[in-house]
Amino acid sequence: MYVIITYDVNERRVGKICKKLKAHLTWTQNSVFEGEVTKGPFLKCRQEVESIININEDSIYYYIVENPKHIRKEIIGEEKGQFDCFF
Amino acid sequence: MYVIITYDVNERRVGKICKKLKAHLTWTQNSVFEGEVTKGPFLKCRQEVESIININEDSIYYYIVENPKHIRKEIIGEEKGQFDCFF
Repeated sequence: MYVIITYDVNERRVGKICKKLKAHLTWTQNSVFEGEVTKGPFLKCRQEVESIININEDSIYYYIVENPKHIRKEIIGEEKGQFDCFF
Repeated sequence: MYVIITYDVNERRVGKICKKLKAHLTWTQNSVFEGEVTKGPFLKCRQEVESIININEDSIYYYIVENPKHIRKEIIGEEKGQFDCFF
């Protein structure tokens, strides 16, 4: 499956969240990670991330496309993800 | 089609970009807009946004899923998009 994850979390938890997402996906820009992932690692990733966030303050959005062929990505301007996430 | 747009633009252009995206899509969180849109309005939206950005400094990512049934969205925590974008 192809997954895009965007997060809006308290800055105290950004580093932890970023580290966990980075283990499974690729950092794209700002608070966006994405990548092709199988079900098992995706569930592990979700469990890890969801154990860190405070659901009253933070939010995580998952966009899931089962068949990666069904999603097309186009980039205009600088591709930021070629550099690394700070965390 | 279902479109997710994420942007990383110089703060001087954020307001303008946000206004243009808001005319066609829904603000989700941080620098993410999304929504179901037909080809014509999507092309108009792209033209407007791409006429504002500086391609040497800014970046716009388009994720396009032709059939909205092929994408699933899950939210954990606070749903930010229910409030309005500042612009």
